[in-house]
Amino acid sequence: MIIMTSKPKAIVSPPSKEELNYRLEKVRNEMRKQQLDYYVSFDPVNIYYLTNFANNVHERPFILIIKGNDTPSMLVPLLEKSHVESRALCDLNYESYYEFPAPKGQNWYDVYQNLIDKDKKVGVESSLPIGISHRTPGNKVVTDIINEARIIKTDYEVGRSVHACRVINKGHKELLKMCQPGIHEFAIYQKITGIMTSKIITDIPNANFMVCKTTAAVWPPSFSHDPHIIPKIFAQMEEGGPHVSIVYAQVDGYGVEIERTFFLGKVSERAKKVFDVMFNAREYAYSMLQPGELMSEIDKKVRKFITEKGYGDYIIHRTGHGLGITGHEAPFLAEGYDRELEPNMLISVEPGIYIPNLGGFRHSDSVLITEDGFIKLSKAPETIEELTIPIKK
Amino acid sequence: MIIMTSKPKAIVSPPSKEELNYRLEKVRNEMRKQQLDYYVSFDPVNIYYLTNFANNVHERPFILIIKGNDTPSMLVPLLEKSHVESRALCDLNYESYYEFPAPKGQNWYDVYQNLIDKDKKVGVESSLPIGISHRTPGNKVVTDIINEARIIKTDYEVGRSVHACRVINKGHKELLKMCQPGIHEFAIYQKITGIMTSKIITDIPNANFMVCKTTAAVWPPSFSHDPHIIPKIFAQMEEGGPHVSIVYAQVDGYGVEIERTFFLGKVSERAKKVFDVMFNAREYAYSMLQPGELMSEIDKKVRKFITEKGYGDYIIHRTGHGLGITGHEAPFLAEGYDRELEPNMLISVEPGIYIPNLGGFRHSDSVLITEDGFIKLSKAPETIEELTIPIKK
Repeated sequence: MIIMTSKPKAIVSPPSKEELNYRLEKVRNEMRKQQLDYYVSFDPVNIYYLTNFANNVHERPFILIIKGNDTPSMLVPLLEKSHVESRALCDLNYESYYEFPAPKGQNWYDVYQNLIDKDKKVGVESSLPIGISHRTPGNKVVTDIINEARIIKTDYEVGRSVHACRVINKGHKELLKMCQPGIHEFAIYQKITGIMTSKIITDIPNANFMVCKTTAAVWPPSFSHDPHIIPKIFAQMEEGGPHVSIVYAQVDGYGVEIERTFFLGKVSERAKKVFDVMFNAREYAYSMLQPGELMSEIDKKVRKFITEKGYGDYIIHRTGHGLGITGHEAPFLAEGYDRELEPNMLISVEPGIYIPNLGGFRHSDSVLITEDGFIKLSKAPETIEELTIPIKK
Repeated sequence: MIIMTSKPKAIVSPPSKEELNYRLEKVRNEMRKQQLDYYVSFDPVNIYYLTNFANNVHERPFILIIKGNDTPSMLVPLLEKSHVESRALCDLNYESYYEFPAPKGQNWYDVYQNLIDKDKKVGVESSLPIGISHRTPGNKVVTDIINEARIIKTDYEVGRSVHACRVINKGHKELLKMCQPGIHEFAIYQKITGIMTSKIITDIPNANFMVCKTTAAVWPPSFSHDPHIIPKIFAQMEEGGPHVSIVYAQVDGYGVEIERTFFLGKVSERAKKVFDVMFNAREYAYSMLQPGELMSEIDKKVRKFITEKGYGDYIIHRTGHGLGITGHEAPFLAEGYDRELEPNMLISVEPGIYIPNLGGFRHSDSVLITEDGFIKLSKAPETIEELTIPIKK
C-alpha cells in the first residue's frame, strides 16, 4: 500500500462564491471546447453542484441556463423564488413563472422559450427529460459537461468529504458495538441514523436537509449473499456470519460510504476462506490505486484474481464507483470504463463475493486518489480478527 | 358542504395480482387507443404503480417494457434481479445486464436494443431521460399513459390512502399538542416523524422503506409567509401566529398531507381577518367539489374570491394538487388545467394567502372525490378557536 500524503483537513463551511465560480468556469471551459452557446441543466444534483441550491424534482420545473460568460439564469416557479435565493450562493438571474400548470402564455415553457435564442448550439444532459428537451429551443447536443466536471473534486469538496467520513466512521463504530444476535434491523437503523443525524446537526447547524441522508443497515448471513435486496425491518442479526454492514451518509451534500463484513461469535472455516479471498482482492485493488492506472483494468484484474481463487461465479458487481453529491456516480472501477485514475477522484473500493447459502463478503471504503496513490477517508476495522465480535452472555 | 358517503375502509395489505393486472389493463387499453405497439417506462413511480417494485434511480437503469398483451419485460442490472423479484407482485419477464458500465456488448443498451422491434410505434413518458430515449428503438411518441392512469384511484388505492391519512392524522394531533413558543423545528420533526414511522411499522411490518417517507414541520410567523422555504433546524416556535404546519407521509407507497394555520396564545385582529378569508375561500372551494366541475374554474373562482376580499396580491400558488404515490402529482386544481373532477380522484384542497411581515394562512387536507361530492380523508381542527393553542405557564 502506498499512502504518501496525510489526510486533508475537514471542512464544514458552505462553499464560497469563488468555489462555485471555479466550478462554473470548469463547465464554461468545456462549453467553449465544444462550441456550445448554451448549456441547460435540469438534474437537481448538477444544479446543486453549481449553485448550492437543492430541490426535489417535482412537477414544477427548475432549469439552470448557462449562456457563455453571462450570469447564469434560473427558471423557477414563483412560489420557490425566495427558497432558491435563500440557498443559492452564486450569482443568478431569476426568471419565474406563475404556477404549474398555468393559464395560457404563463406556463414555464412560455418563459423558457424566451431564454434561449433559436439556431444556437445548446448542450443538454443525457438525464434531461424528453418533455423538457422538446421545449428547449436551439440545436441540441447531448453532452454531460457538469457530470464530467464533478468527477475531479476540488480541495474544498475533498475537505467536505473528509468531514462526511467522520460522520459515517462514528456511525459504523457504534453499529459494530450494538450488533448482537437477535438485534433487529430497525433498531440498528434507528440508533445509527440518529447518531449520524445528531452529529450532522451539531457540526453544521445550518445544514440543508434536502441534501442530508443517513442510512445504516446490516445484511445478516441468511441474505447477505444478496447485496441489493432491501432488508425487512424486523430481520434479525444472527450468530456467526458473514454479516455485511452498510453505513452511508450524505452530509449536507457530500455522500460517502463504509461497509464491512463481520461475524458474531464464530467464523466457519469456509467463510474464513472466502473472507481471505475478498480481503486479498481488496488489497490487490488498493495496490493499483494511483494516477494513470486504467479503471477498467483494475476491475478486470481484481475479477481475474477472484476467479483464479475459484469464486468467479460469485462476482456480481464492479470493484467500485465514484462518490460525490450522490453516493453512486462516475467514475467507475468497472470493465468498460476505460479512463485513467486522476488525483482528487473520490471512489469506493469494494470487490465482493456473494455465495448463496453462505453469504456475502465485501468491505467498502471512501477513498481519495492523490498525486502519489490514495488515502482512505473512511475508517473501521478491516481484519477478520477485529471483525469477529464476541457474543455478550 | 356535501358529504354523502361514509369514509371507505382502510387497507394495509399489499396489492393483489388482480389489482396490478387491472392497472396494467388500463394502460393497455390506452395503448390500443393510441395504436402503440410498445410502452416504455423508466419513471420509478410509474414502475412502482404497475409492479409494486420501488427503486431509487441511480446510474444502473431499470426499464419496464410493455408489448401488447405479452407479459411485460423488465430490464434490470444483474445485481438487482433478486431485489426486483422480491418486491414485484405482477408477472414479469426479467432481462438482466452485466453491470454499469460493462464490457462492450454487455451494457444495458445492448440488451435493451433487442427488446423492441425497429419500425414499431413506441410510447414513452415525457420524463424519460433523453439519453435513454436515444437508445430506444422504434418510432417514439411522447405520451404519459401511466401518469394518466394514476389520476383515477382504484378502490384499493383509496383504502390505502385512508390508512395513510390515519398516520398523518395521528402525527398532526401530536404536533399540535407539542407546539409551544421556543420549541425547535428539529424537535417537532424528530418526535412527529418518529411517531408516524412507528405507526407505519406497526400497521405494515413488511412496509417497503423505499416508498416510505415522513415529514413534519412548522413555519412560525416570522417566515410562514414563505411556504416553500426550508425551515432551519433550530428555528423556534413563537408566541402568536400564524404558524403553518405541514405533516406529510408516504405510507408504503401512498402519499397524503395535512396542513393547518394555528396560533400560540394570541391572535391579532389583522391575522384573524386574513384567517377568515382563507377559511371562507376554502369553504367555497369545497362547495364546488363534485364530479363534472372544471378544475381550472375552481381555482379561478377561489382566486377571484380572495382577490375581491383584497388579498389577490398574496396568492402565490394554485388551490390544490393530486395525491398518490408521490405527494405532488396530477390532477391539479389550477388555472390552465381544464379537466373535470371525477370520482376517485384524490386531491389536496389548500387555498393560501401569504403576507410578508404578517405570515401565511393555509389549511390543506387530503380529499377524495366521490360520486356525490367529496370526503375529507385527513382530519384535524379547522376553526380559529380550535387552532388557538393556550400557552402553558
